[in-house]
Amino acid sequence: MSRLITGIAELVTNDPWAGDGSALGLLRDAAIVVDGDRIAWIGPAAQAPPADTRTDLGGRAVLPGFVDTHTHLVFAGDRSAEFAARMAGARYDGGGIAATVAATREASDARLRALLAGRIAELRAQGTTTVEIKSGYGLTVADELRALRLAREVTVETTFLGAHVVPAGAARDDYLALVTGEMLRACAPHARWTDVFCEPTSPHAFDGDEARCVLRAGAAAGLGLRVHGNQLSAGPGVALAVEFGAASVDHCTHLTDADVDALAAGTTVATLLPGVEFATRSPYPDARRLLDAGITVALATDCNPGTSYTSSIPLVIALAVREMRMTPAEALWAATAGGARALRRDDVGVLAPGRRADLTVLDAPSHLHLAYRPGVPIARALRPGR
Amino acid sequence: MSRLITGIAELVTNDPWAGDGSALGLLRDAAIVVDGDRIAWIGPAAQAPPADTRTDLGGRAVLPGFVDTHTHLVFAGDRSAEFAARMAGARYDGGGIAATVAATREASDARLRALLAGRIAELRAQGTTTVEIKSGYGLTVADELRALRLAREVTVETTFLGAHVVPAGAARDDYLALVTGEMLRACAPHARWTDVFCEPTSPHAFDGDEARCVLRAGAAAGLGLRVHGNQLSAGPGVALAVEFGAASVDHCTHLTDADVDALAAGTTVATLLPGVEFATRSPYPDARRLLDAGITVALATDCNPGTSYTSSIPLVIALAVREMRMTPAEALWAATAGGARALRRDDVGVLAPGRRADLTVLDAPSHLHLAYRPGVPIARALRPGR
Ligand SMILES: [Zn+2]
Ligand SMILES: [Zn+2]
Repeated sequence: MSRLITGIAELVTNDPWAGDGSALGLLRDAAIVVDGDRIAWIGPAAQAPPADTRTDLGGRAVLPGFVDTHTHLVFAGDRSAEFAARMAGARYDGGGIAATVAATREASDARLRALLAGRIAELRAQGTTTVEIKSGYGLTVADELRALRLAREVTVETTFLGAHVVPAGAARDDYLALVTGEMLRACAPHARWTDVFCEPTSPHAFDGDEARCVLRAGAAAGLGLRVHGNQLSAGPGVALAVEFGAASVDHCTHLTDADVDALAAGTTVATLLPGVEFATRSPYPDARRLLDAGITVALATDCNPGTSYTSSIPLVIALAVREMRMTPAEALWAATAGGARALRRDDVGVLAPGRRADLTVLDAPSHLHLAYRPGVPIARALRPGR
Repeated sequence: MSRLITGIAELVTNDPWAGDGSALGLLRDAAIVVDGDRIAWIGPAAQAPPADTRTDLGGRAVLPGFVDTHTHLVFAGDRSAEFAARMAGARYDGGGIAATVAATREASDARLRALLAGRIAELRAQGTTTVEIKSGYGLTVADELRALRLAREVTVETTFLGAHVVPAGAARDDYLALVTGEMLRACAPHARWTDVFCEPTSPHAFDGDEARCVLRAGAAAGLGLRVHGNQLSAGPGVALAVEFGAASVDHCTHLTDADVDALAAGTTVATLLPGVEFATRSPYPDARRLLDAGITVALATDCNPGTSYTSSIPLVIALAVREMRMTPAEALWAATAGGARALRRDDVGVLAPGRRADLTVLDAPSHLHLAYRPGVPIARALRPGR
């Protein structure tokens, strides 16, 4: 069953060889033919081939579905009061994670599955078609394994984050041995990636030496690597990520010149999470410094109940433009093609024949409206066959 | 037909005599009985009286519908490119309004009506149940009149804003005579309010003497008064608004101590529009200075294509908390009860027996989630009878 989609006022392909020659590869008055879950044809509407069915979008913009490479969607509990306290002046150091761990351990599989399904629906409703999901609110072998099993039911991009924080009451060395030993062995079959919250200034997170152990063990277990790095201080996270060839280092809020040089010389994507700075009232990462150094930047939500409980990539794009001085085009690219690179995927993030037909439609004629209309849910994932 | 609504985990009444004694008048595990378009009963769910039908909200928060007291929804045209240019460094001085005026004049009634209906649907979809709409993109007698007629089809809160800017090519004095004479006479029957963009630093807007003429003429025509004041500089707008007993002065971004004193001594509400500062990358108003002086603060979107093309009160609340250090409770009060005061209405903004049953429901257990979940459309207006 092939499907012709017309009425596309602006098509963002992210294919610099298509369209207008810009990084977004813009086409005006375009059409797409979708066959199954793949794109069969892209081009000017006037040259569209016949297809079995036809959908007219009436002059809307179409984009590659957003690729949200950093979420913590498997959790239970409510931390809105902690948020309100922080807005009234309380400081964030990662300690509140314990509250989510307790609530998540207590929740039944059915409850967690229902909460996760609601969050996935929320993401899709605002245009996200590829999502990475981390564990990290279990912190026991059984609870981490459960989180990854549940995440695997909704995405292939699962990340083992046993090294989120040292759980309350555990000895650091014992927990590190568990995370790099038994817990890793149990979780690895259910994860594509491993990750570590590297933040020497937090008593709950992991310092450089500890993070090195986690990354080495994860790589040895055959997992791809990701790092939470340089969120609260210019710590060793970025350098480690580049040294280990991690796919992405996420946050990058505090960087030394050496960090920037390392990223520029390496293959690790810098993933910025401005929803965190919004929700913690912190200074934003310096996106221009990274872009000007030629570093590949991705944008993601970090959707989690402690520091960024937004699932909205459109809001993240608006913050990237307002607060980090990315252009609307740079921000959109980072949330689609940039995200695909941060997951080392070439089937998503770009619209071209043979790639996945993960399409996001805007109730607007141009991608500029994502930043121009903050807080307005103009983006939605177009369902296959609909 | 009476309707019992249960499953309300948290009910915000804005009635300090109900509930927990706070300004929000919070009730837990509450129920409401609605009869027609009015509230018949409010209280603990366990004491709810019988009704003809019953709706169970399953543990959600219910609030008074948002009162958005400042919008410019009657317009055509697209200014997303101007937005992108401003984000790249171009300055805002009100000059771009001319582009919207040209596109709006060109649009048919049917086109404007369809655009307006879409925007009203968008507002309601995010929980706004009372909306003020200004003219100001016509700037001829016929075009201003048309805008107000169209606005009156969707709200009683219509505002004549012929004094938005001096139209291109017009002599200032001639236009001022028109706005305070023939145009006012034609428009007054279709408006509840008059308004003026008082901003001496803009070559397009009106200085203090001109604004005084506009307000005097509007008052003489029997209209209530509103002022766009102190947006770009500490001009005379706030002082004039208080002197004339205007219901509200909107923006209040640049205030002198004398302005704050005047507002504290007067009856004029200070309406803050942080969506404008977000979209123009400007410093935010000092909400705490106003609140600490005992001044009544409202929050609104200023939804317009030039400086704030968001229709989302939830985003405005999130910005008020993040950027202006209002508490979540202060921000919610300002967007509901504060808005009602800025419109001098006592039937909206508060949930109590006899008031309008304009209810907004959150996909969340508490009002804290409005700021805690930025960019996520968790609020929606509950339709009567649904
Ligand atoms: Zn994270
Ligand atoms: Zn305005």
